[in-house]
Amino acid sequence: MKCLVTGGAGFIGSTLVDRLLARGDEVVCYDNFDTGQVEFLKEAQQNPRFSLARGDTLDQDALTAAMAGCDFVFHLAANADVRFGTQHPRKDLEQNTIATYNVLYAMKEAGVEEIAFSSTGSVYGEAAVIPTPEDAPFPVQTSLYGASKLAGEGLISAFCEGYGFRAWIFRFVSILGERYTHGHVFDFYWQLSNDPKKLKVLGDGTQKKSYLYIQDCIDAIFTAIEKAKDRVNVFNLGTDEYIEVRDSIRFITEEMKVQPKLSFTGGSRGWIGDNPFIFLDCSKIRKLGWRPKLSIKEAVGRTLRYLKNNEWVFAARKVPAWS
Amino acid sequence: MKCLVTGGAGFIGSTLVDRLLARGDEVVCYDNFDTGQVEFLKEAQQNPRFSLARGDTLDQDALTAAMAGCDFVFHLAANADVRFGTQHPRKDLEQNTIATYNVLYAMKEAGVEEIAFSSTGSVYGEAAVIPTPEDAPFPVQTSLYGASKLAGEGLISAFCEGYGFRAWIFRFVSILGERYTHGHVFDFYWQLSNDPKKLKVLGDGTQKKSYLYIQDCIDAIFTAIEKAKDRVNVFNLGTDEYIEVRDSIRFITEEMKVQPKLSFTGGSRGWIGDNPFIFLDCSKIRKLGWRPKLSIKEAVGRTLRYLKNNEWVFAARKVPAWS
Repeated sequence: MKCLVTGGAGFIGSTLVDRLLARGDEVVCYDNFDTGQVEFLKEAQQNPRFSLARGDTLDQDALTAAMAGCDFVFHLAANADVRFGTQHPRKDLEQNTIATYNVLYAMKEAGVEEIAFSSTGSVYGEAAVIPTPEDAPFPVQTSLYGASKLAGEGLISAFCEGYGFRAWIFRFVSILGERYTHGHVFDFYWQLSNDPKKLKVLGDGTQKKSYLYIQDCIDAIFTAIEKAKDRVNVFNLGTDEYIEVRDSIRFITEEMKVQPKLSFTGGSRGWIGDNPFIFLDCSKIRKLGWRPKLSIKEAVGRTLRYLKNNEWVFAARKVPAWS
Repeated sequence: MKCLVTGGAGFIGSTLVDRLLARGDEVVCYDNFDTGQVEFLKEAQQNPRFSLARGDTLDQDALTAAMAGCDFVFHLAANADVRFGTQHPRKDLEQNTIATYNVLYAMKEAGVEEIAFSSTGSVYGEAAVIPTPEDAPFPVQTSLYGASKLAGEGLISAFCEGYGFRAWIFRFVSILGERYTHGHVFDFYWQLSNDPKKLKVLGDGTQKKSYLYIQDCIDAIFTAIEKAKDRVNVFNLGTDEYIEVRDSIRFITEEMKVQPKLSFTGGSRGWIGDNPFIFLDCSKIRKLGWRPKLSIKEAVGRTLRYLKNNEWVFAARKVPAWS
């Protein structure tokens, strides 16, 4: 199979690229290297089945050209900065919604009819039901990021109905592991590396979130695509546990062997539109035989060890995630 | 109150403009006259509290300028051609999703914080629950139109959370009545005016749909805005009845006193992405004291009498709705 991976130089994208190559697929990585890293593709670039198409998802022609001869699209390119949506509201619209339209239109032009999409548990807003199943009550959006991904899901489903595409839509919790380059573990590690004596925490530390290890995430994606054959297949992806930010702080400080003084910005939300409790019901994907191999604590541990051995990722990030 | 009405020269928009003026409001009508009609504003233009801003919802600067000094935005401008989505997929994205973003951004720039939005029962896709309540299970989109309106809803909710806006989102069934200029009654009337002996019907005639009379629709909008004060207020708007396309044909042929030979294109759907059964649970708006005054049959009757007395609307439509 020949696959195009948008955002293929990113954290999840590049890991997917490596896994696709490992199973024998041909892979086109499409990335604008805005947050993607050439370093993540070092191994892939040794592989003759790999090719790189440097381009932006807002460039319709480049996208269409890159898709020539592909059988499947993994659309992972996105603005993932859920926290800063209100500072640049058009960014989510462009990079997540319009970009997804462009990907779909390129598929139509290039004759590609199958797509997997990285959506988010944020589309449930402040969910009425927790753990939240895929068919939860019609949600009210609370972030521009969630809204832009919901719009992406809607476009994909409409293209499936309108043009006979098939889609796998994955609503992720936060993903952790090797090549992780944004989110609270990243922020905390950075802060503590600079000053192990203090740690600034957004909110009151009681926010409850779920996390999933990157390789478990890729396993789940492969399982769903292999076994689920509806026209539109929607899956929550997460572990059957959640932790509080305070638990996470404990894991991190233990692993780093530091004892910082904590200061909390206060309030039940870390930022405007933050969801104080994200916990997804993942029984649908589990029924297909998938289960995560790592606990959240283990995933946090691997992430920290990765960051420790790869501090270059902090310098490589153009905009510090904690700014 | 000073209100801006996007799509204020359209069927629903111009009726809303007249009602706002009648209750004493100041009204700015924003319309590009792509499908809107100057004729619909004839009465409004006599009113000193009315002003017209000719512009496109894709023109961010013009939108922002038009909003100066407004207290409230009714965002009705849209591409409403649900049937032809797959022929021009970018149209729904631009005119419904990106346009809604532009309206919200203009509000933020102009300091307007309240918005009413014309969404659609189509956002429920093929609903799992009928009659469909506002908190129905998370839907899968089946049309580009529905997807584009869902995206609009999501953007509005996210702006409410992010910038402290308040919104009223209305999921309409099809609206009928004076100034009605697109949809199946329009198509059937046109066909039968040209040849009363035959009528071509999309699908098999068993599609079940609900309709609402325009003045009842405006009453409901006013009731909701006056009485519902959540940050995001979502309401289904429809009657507590539905009819089959065959019933509708009977109403129309009786009213027009014709007996055409019917030919059906066949299948349970009129077109790709058509929803064979739309029937909304409107108990939420009814609990606020609103109820429709006209039945579907009466609304069809008024629509036909309007079309009979205003055949100019057929010529004024740039693209025939039945093509």
